[in-house]
Amino acid sequence: METTASNVFIHPRAIVESDQIGRGTRIWASAHVLKGAVIGENCNIGDGAFIEGGAKIGNNVTVKNQCLIWEGVTIADNVFVGPNVVFTNDPWPRSPRLEQVKERYATKQWLSPTQVAEGVSLGASVTVMCGITIGEYATVGIGSVVTRDVPAHALVYGAPARVMGAVCRCGHKLQFQQQHATCGTCGHRYRKEKELIQWVGPKTI
Amino acid sequence: METTASNVFIHPRAIVESDQIGRGTRIWASAHVLKGAVIGENCNIGDGAFIEGGAKIGNNVTVKNQCLIWEGVTIADNVFVGPNVVFTNDPWPRSPRLEQVKERYATKQWLSPTQVAEGVSLGASVTVMCGITIGEYATVGIGSVVTRDVPAHALVYGAPARVMGAVCRCGHKLQFQQQHATCGTCGHRYRKEKELIQWVGPKTI
Amino acid sequence: METTASNVFIHPRAIVESDQIGRGTRIWASAHVLKGAVIGENCNIGDGAFIEGGAKIGNNVTVKNQCLIWEGVTIADNVFVGPNVVFTNDPWPRSPRLEQVKERYATKQWLSPTQVAEGVSLGASVTVMCGITIGEYATVGIGSVVTRDVPAHALVYGAPARVMGAVCRCGHKLQFQQQHATCGTCGHRYRKEKELIQWVGPKTI
Repeated sequence: METTASNVFIHPRAIVESDQIGRGTRIWASAHVLKGAVIGENCNIGDGAFIEGGAKIGNNVTVKNQCLIWEGVTIADNVFVGPNVVFTNDPWPRSPRLEQVKERYATKQWLSPTQVAEGVSLGASVTVMCGITIGEYATVGIGSVVTRDVPAHALVYGAPARVMGAVCRCGHKLQFQQQHATCGTCGHRYRKEKELIQWVGPKTI
Repeated sequence: METTASNVFIHPRAIVESDQIGRGTRIWASAHVLKGAVIGENCNIGDGAFIEGGAKIGNNVTVKNQCLIWEGVTIADNVFVGPNVVFTNDPWPRSPRLEQVKERYATKQWLSPTQVAEGVSLGASVTVMCGITIGEYATVGIGSVVTRDVPAHALVYGAPARVMGAVCRCGHKLQFQQQHATCGTCGHRYRKEKELIQWVGPKTI
Repeated sequence: METTASNVFIHPRAIVESDQIGRGTRIWASAHVLKGAVIGENCNIGDGAFIEGGAKIGNNVTVKNQCLIWEGVTIADNVFVGPNVVFTNDPWPRSPRLEQVKERYATKQWLSPTQVAEGVSLGASVTVMCGITIGEYATVGIGSVVTRDVPAHALVYGAPARVMGAVCRCGHKLQFQQQHATCGTCGHRYRKEKELIQWVGPKTI
């Protein structure tokens, strides 16, 4: 993707300075997408969301209102970023004009990247520490503070967020019987081995 | 109320698409009120607040800056919604363009409503899970995550928010002596029966 | 400082009603600085930040996106206010148009001030209770709820935020050996006496 596609919708009150927005994406009022930010196809970027240069967002991603997504944050396809979710990229921040830290902020060495894998859901007002990875199809409960890696398909919540259960690709809770689970909502099947949850297949007919 | 009253104040940088705003209500910069949102009389809607179509707000309500109020949320009269308070309406969210959930999001069956009763106060940066009711004159402490129903006049806080005390209509803490309390600030009187707090009457002269 | 300096940068989508902005300060899109707010020199005020009349901000302060800073909040020099940080100024809020509290809100007696000292860092989405002081060079971890005073150089986090360690002026963690610590990053030296941390001097050459 080299230039913004022609059928991108940009609300007249949004500010879009990036030219790397995929086709079908919609960007709403007061959102601000900076130069150098990359957004895929068919995304929905809510009111007041802020996406900094250097942030990368995949296809079919929902970014709800007022999310803050900084340089160093990479979000894969089909992710739901709930309202007021805030990422970070500096583990030990100080005001960069403070005398003692001017040198540190002269380069980008302070920057610590964050990865959000395919299909993840981040609930409303979640805060995400930098330097971590959130595994595919995991769900983070509302108001949580994520301070360490989250395994694929985990349901985590709290401050700090801890593993409290498991979720299906469709977003509903999974109940494991020993190593096996079938989603009560959509029928997809999973296997758990040494705490790692793997997708096995769709509903058996 | 069928059309927006003539003495509504709308800041030139606000976006108001609803025609159901009560008289005397003020809507400030960068706020966005969508078509189909209902707002009562004498409300104050702070900068950057977002009120979706289908949300209902009563009279004399204060909505501070950057609150996010979605379809399915009903707020009664005299409520204080603190700054950065975020509601939710989907208990198991996924990005709606994810293949496995397209069917779920084809209708509004996923939507889970929330009720906030008369006189409630929600502190700064509170997050409210959907599907719950917050009872009249309850107060939710700053930064709390509300995950279950809150009884009338309860003071709750934490993540998840738990009952930590009781508050008067005037907002100050009540100290119960057995089943009775008189507010040290305004003199209103209360009775507690089986953990339910009831207003008895105003100050005895 | 009596009038806004000539080299202040104000984004065309910001709203600045104060005339007390120091030289070199930059104010970004959708930020709103009300009449009577005081902002020092070389500050950076992020998108969507809201600074009310009566708030005071020193020099070299970073205020990231969507921070809410009210009347009664005073922020010293070189402070980092992370994204989505929300202050408060009313310990027992109610909607001011509620009959029982109209008298209370007729004056400013309800207002409870907050002080943030030199060099402090407040992490992303921190909520700060009013009536407290955050001591110099303290760091508050992301998502924390600050409900009581924070000592100088303390690292605090959680809800409520508790002292979990110590940080250097440069922002990095300090490890005390009995009463003494030397920062592993910048070499500044500290002494602890009765839980109070004092700066001793810069790196010994």
